[in-house]
Amino acid sequence: MLAFGAHPDDIEFTCGGVIAQETDAGRAAHFVVCSRGEAGTHGAPEQRVAEARRAAALLGATVEFVELDGDSHLEVRAAHAITLAGVLRRVRPGIVLAPSPTENQHPDHWRLGRLVCDAVRLARFGGVRELRESAPHGIAQLLFYAPTREAEPDKISPVLIDISRPEIIATWVAAMEAHGSQTSARNYVEVQLTRARLHGLGAGVEYATALFPADPLVFSSLSGLGRGTRGL
Amino acid sequence: MLAFGAHPDDIEFTCGGVIAQETDAGRAAHFVVCSRGEAGTHGAPEQRVAEARRAAALLGATVEFVELDGDSHLEVRAAHAITLAGVLRRVRPGIVLAPSPTENQHPDHWRLGRLVCDAVRLARFGGVRELRESAPHGIAQLLFYAPTREAEPDKISPVLIDISRPEIIATWVAAMEAHGSQTSARNYVEVQLTRARLHGLGAGVEYATALFPADPLVFSSLSGLGRGTRGL
Amino acid sequence: MLAFGAHPDDIEFTCGGVIAQETDAGRAAHFVVCSRGEAGTHGAPEQRVAEARRAAALLGATVEFVELDGDSHLEVRAAHAITLAGVLRRVRPGIVLAPSPTENQHPDHWRLGRLVCDAVRLARFGGVRELRESAPHGIAQLLFYAPTREAEPDKISPVLIDISRPEIIATWVAAMEAHGSQTSARNYVEVQLTRARLHGLGAGVEYATALFPADPLVFSSLSGLGRGTRGL
Amino acid sequence: MLAFGAHPDDIEFTCGGVIAQETDAGRAAHFVVCSRGEAGTHGAPEQRVAEARRAAALLGATVEFVELDGDSHLEVRAAHAITLAGVLRRVRPGIVLAPSPTENQHPDHWRLGRLVCDAVRLARFGGVRELRESAPHGIAQLLFYAPTREAEPDKISPVLIDISRPEIIATWVAAMEAHGSQTSARNYVEVQLTRARLHGLGAGVEYATALFPADPLVFSSLSGLGRGTRGL
Amino acid sequence: MLAFGAHPDDIEFTCGGVIAQETDAGRAAHFVVCSRGEAGTHGAPEQRVAEARRAAALLGATVEFVELDGDSHLEVRAAHAITLAGVLRRVRPGIVLAPSPTENQHPDHWRLGRLVCDAVRLARFGGVRELRESAPHGIAQLLFYAPTREAEPDKISPVLIDISRPEIIATWVAAMEAHGSQTSARNYVEVQLTRARLHGLGAGVEYATALFPADPLVFSSLSGLGRGTRGL
Amino acid sequence: MLAFGAHPDDIEFTCGGVIAQETDAGRAAHFVVCSRGEAGTHGAPEQRVAEARRAAALLGATVEFVELDGDSHLEVRAAHAITLAGVLRRVRPGIVLAPSPTENQHPDHWRLGRLVCDAVRLARFGGVRELRESAPHGIAQLLFYAPTREAEPDKISPVLIDISRPEIIATWVAAMEAHGSQTSARNYVEVQLTRARLHGLGAGVEYATALFPADPLVFSSLSGLGRGTRGL
Repeated sequence: MLAFGAHPDDIEFTCGGVIAQETDAGRAAHFVVCSRGEAGTHGAPEQRVAEARRAAALLGATVEFVELDGDSHLEVRAAHAITLAGVLRRVRPGIVLAPSPTENQHPDHWRLGRLVCDAVRLARFGGVRELRESAPHGIAQLLFYAPTREAEPDKISPVLIDISRPEIIATWVAAMEAHGSQTSARNYVEVQLTRARLHGLGAGVEYATALFPADPLVFSSLSGLGRGTRGL
Repeated sequence: MLAFGAHPDDIEFTCGGVIAQETDAGRAAHFVVCSRGEAGTHGAPEQRVAEARRAAALLGATVEFVELDGDSHLEVRAAHAITLAGVLRRVRPGIVLAPSPTENQHPDHWRLGRLVCDAVRLARFGGVRELRESAPHGIAQLLFYAPTREAEPDKISPVLIDISRPEIIATWVAAMEAHGSQTSARNYVEVQLTRARLHGLGAGVEYATALFPADPLVFSSLSGLGRGTRGL
Repeated sequence: MLAFGAHPDDIEFTCGGVIAQETDAGRAAHFVVCSRGEAGTHGAPEQRVAEARRAAALLGATVEFVELDGDSHLEVRAAHAITLAGVLRRVRPGIVLAPSPTENQHPDHWRLGRLVCDAVRLARFGGVRELRESAPHGIAQLLFYAPTREAEPDKISPVLIDISRPEIIATWVAAMEAHGSQTSARNYVEVQLTRARLHGLGAGVEYATALFPADPLVFSSLSGLGRGTRGL
Repeated sequence: MLAFGAHPDDIEFTCGGVIAQETDAGRAAHFVVCSRGEAGTHGAPEQRVAEARRAAALLGATVEFVELDGDSHLEVRAAHAITLAGVLRRVRPGIVLAPSPTENQHPDHWRLGRLVCDAVRLARFGGVRELRESAPHGIAQLLFYAPTREAEPDKISPVLIDISRPEIIATWVAAMEAHGSQTSARNYVEVQLTRARLHGLGAGVEYATALFPADPLVFSSLSGLGRGTRGL
Repeated sequence: MLAFGAHPDDIEFTCGGVIAQETDAGRAAHFVVCSRGEAGTHGAPEQRVAEARRAAALLGATVEFVELDGDSHLEVRAAHAITLAGVLRRVRPGIVLAPSPTENQHPDHWRLGRLVCDAVRLARFGGVRELRESAPHGIAQLLFYAPTREAEPDKISPVLIDISRPEIIATWVAAMEAHGSQTSARNYVEVQLTRARLHGLGAGVEYATALFPADPLVFSSLSGLGRGTRGL
Repeated sequence: MLAFGAHPDDIEFTCGGVIAQETDAGRAAHFVVCSRGEAGTHGAPEQRVAEARRAAALLGATVEFVELDGDSHLEVRAAHAITLAGVLRRVRPGIVLAPSPTENQHPDHWRLGRLVCDAVRLARFGGVRELRESAPHGIAQLLFYAPTREAEPDKISPVLIDISRPEIIATWVAAMEAHGSQTSARNYVEVQLTRARLHGLGAGVEYATALFPADPLVFSSLSGLGRGTRGL
């Protein structure tokens, strides 16, 4: 599994619980962070990189930094999409997580979401000259995460991932708090736990994270759909 | 699994392939048909009832008829929702299939969809006086089917069910053709196979049926999401 | 051409210009008015019926009254849809005009829009017992009109009908003013002319009326599409 | 008529039937192709250019290549919009076809769609310094085509163009098959014929292509609207 | 201010904080409850009525019961809208609160929302025969409340009402807990406080309630708009 | 209050009445115009700048020109957003007006709207290196204006600002007519007055301007909401 983040703490805050659960089940997770958070109000870039490394380790994930235009300077350029497609061909993930391309949020977030959308297509094409060295790769799923409620895509039905196990929540909180430069300044941990609690209350579990599949899910039988929230 | 249809052929035409596949895997299916199709241009009611019984048998399903207001006369009445809730409490299904409540289709279709939405709620409530004899029941999933493309809900992302196995398609076609009073009059079989082929082409399989979950799907891990259509 | 109105003045105010133009070109127009406006603040029912007759005559149209539940009492009943389907089979129109089924407007308006949607389907079905005396009829087009801007359907792209010829506007205004019980109480004429002027300014003509086709338009060549508003 | 395509086969696959019908009726068609398809998995650029020329000839159209950023490298730049506006001023078309600007598709497609939107505006403005040599030009209609169903604009009602005549379908298929580098690799022809058959079934004809007008259609009378799909 | 509720606890759970704040500021509040909650799983009707009376008293509001079709039996009937219009003419409120007419919720909720929409129109019309005894009344604002997140109208931008003052929250919680038959069975209080906290976090305050104006707000200057959530 | 315009006349035509009313009430207004209108069909850049200065003076506003890419050449670049964020930090407004980011309009308009969205975020961030000299600033409200009806955001409910006072309308018209190079060529004044009249008719006043808040409005009591259009 591969997760993209525009800033050092985006992945952890928005889907750290899901990732903790995946790695706890023995599945590999890799983070690609596209800036060092240098435009933020709090935290020097070196500190933020260190926080990201520590948070990834807590979540059982590896992390790399792929610099594009810098924090708060990201633009939607074909060259960036090709760079990210190259990462996809190297890491060859099944599931990819990226910020939603919904525009009502931090400009780096939706632009990275758009770039990842493009990158997952380019990674499949055989003739892109910058990528000729690497074998094409088609991912299994692109799932969007929403850093805030305003960033939730309004055209895509969410899927809710149950992350209720106490040790998963504890790991998630630890990973968020590893970003001490941010959590000491504002109540980001409470925001995300409140969102996860509300999704959990809707799903009839303790905590849940909403993710938004870029494409329709394909199942081989109805039993694969598990249950919905209707039973409540 | 319980499927509701407004007319004797609705279930077979729209999700016969999915049902054939479920019963083939050993899961039970029951149909509730809410009219005898007596307003249609072709086929006497007795013939249509017989066709429905034969089609259900071909699909490995049982069928019952629950008369509400009659073909083309259906209204959204609380009494009907309570009647259908009573059926839900008796059959006690996990998954429920119903026509989408999207209004741009045969008026009986969307009204039945709306009634089923209400019924799955009422089936859970302990105090509905007409239902006091039966134990409350919460279903696992309500999935809408769309008799035509115009009836696909525009607010819900579809899930695609792969129904490519040749014997499944053969069973589905047989069940559709069991409605000879209809298939001899218009090319309904071709319409549905063309839709399923187009969904299949999008999903990278031979044939697929699109269903629309009324509520967010809840998963306990990302691996439950299977794959999307993005890999194509 | 057949136009449905919930109250004696609805057709004239919302699409009187279009109708004047059609009848001026020699095409027949018939109005079906489903109440006598008896719940309005101004005008006795007899006066309103007389005004409607006079307005229809000015527009070159015939008019009949089909009482359903009465002004401000309309409900969506299967029996009403069948009644209107019977009218459709008798009049056998190509184009049908009806108020939009968008709910944010006078409750009679959207309910009549919904009933007409159902009626145009029922008029085609061979087996509806109440309609067995009359031959099925399929219309060519169902076009919605919007009594107010809030009533414009947000899922349907409008088509703009150019009604700029001064004699057409004059006839339209005369037909609106024939409803003196209403126009003496509020500035309805100005509202509708302002809307038509704004649509006209958008279309590069003097005045235009927006209509909303219930179904996709089918053309046999691109030249049928005329021009869009893009050239401005 | 002028059609824009991002890659050598886009126009033929998505609206070849419509174009065959227009040229068959004696109307001129010109294609502007904005890359040589060099990033695709199959087919060398020279081969693809040759295929495009042959396909255009089969459709009775002329074709030119306007290189922008190259296949899979297209960006939304003001300079590109001005380049395309220059083409519009030179060719001076009435109807313009372009890929939809809906983002859920190949990144070159929606970006070209967006650029063409901008270009049709710029072509009308008198003071754009790069365009001062040419006379401003306002087109009659901008119609979007959708390479896949996901690319269909969800805010615009489609119009369906009946392309059922067997010789038109034969010409369309021949033009698609002229792109042998692509059709030998995947079943693109079947995909497009299946889509056209489904649209045709909805419209009551053999085959139809859905197009999406960028702006409201303006008609001078209701008779111009032809018929809708409601009659079926 | 007049608030409508379908069941004895709807108003308190969804907008009790807002009401506490209004009555605390000296503005009158009246509740109209349209069933005795007799279909619920928990609580006898008499108990629920008593709970509603106590909760209203805690909120500083008066309450009356207007029986329509009974809990879980509500239908959209013209007669009900006229009954509620009669209440509006008697109480003559400025602001009206009602459940949203969004269909994805308890069937009584959205139907009551729809009925109130109709009632506020009918209350203005001079000629409705059942209402002739009372003077027409136009309200100032109709605001929808959403009992659950799924019930939030997706076409209306929310306004957030800051209810952060501790004594307001305390009163709200007390009013919710007055419905002990419900709160002892499920964690409804936590659900609503979590929603209010999340809205508050979005608005930069402690707690907020989202309401959805049925119609555009009219201001006499920009200074009336206060602040948005953008500053955060 | 700070208003951004892409061309010398955009602010005046779209929200000149609102601004006249604000300055009349003693609140300061500043305009930032991002081109000299040099791509337009009519008016030399110097003339247009002079017209803008005169129009601003008539409205009681100050004006500055911030050149970005030039008229009809605007691109969405991070550098531009940072430039505009610098302006926000210098001017430190409460309310900000900008063109809507809806794409169906002049390409400069929606791009400037998008840039302003980004700029209001960047203005708050402490670490943006180009902005280190200036203190972060959070605005109170971002309100979009729509140069044409097609540019109205379809996801945001409008608020209507009553601008009915005759002296306000007179000042607005004077400010529009100060752009004689444009008003002598097309009927822009009529277009805007017709729009304002239609909004006014909907709001029950003489004239109104629709604005679209980028974020939910936050109120401290229901009495802040004033009245809606429902009372009509």
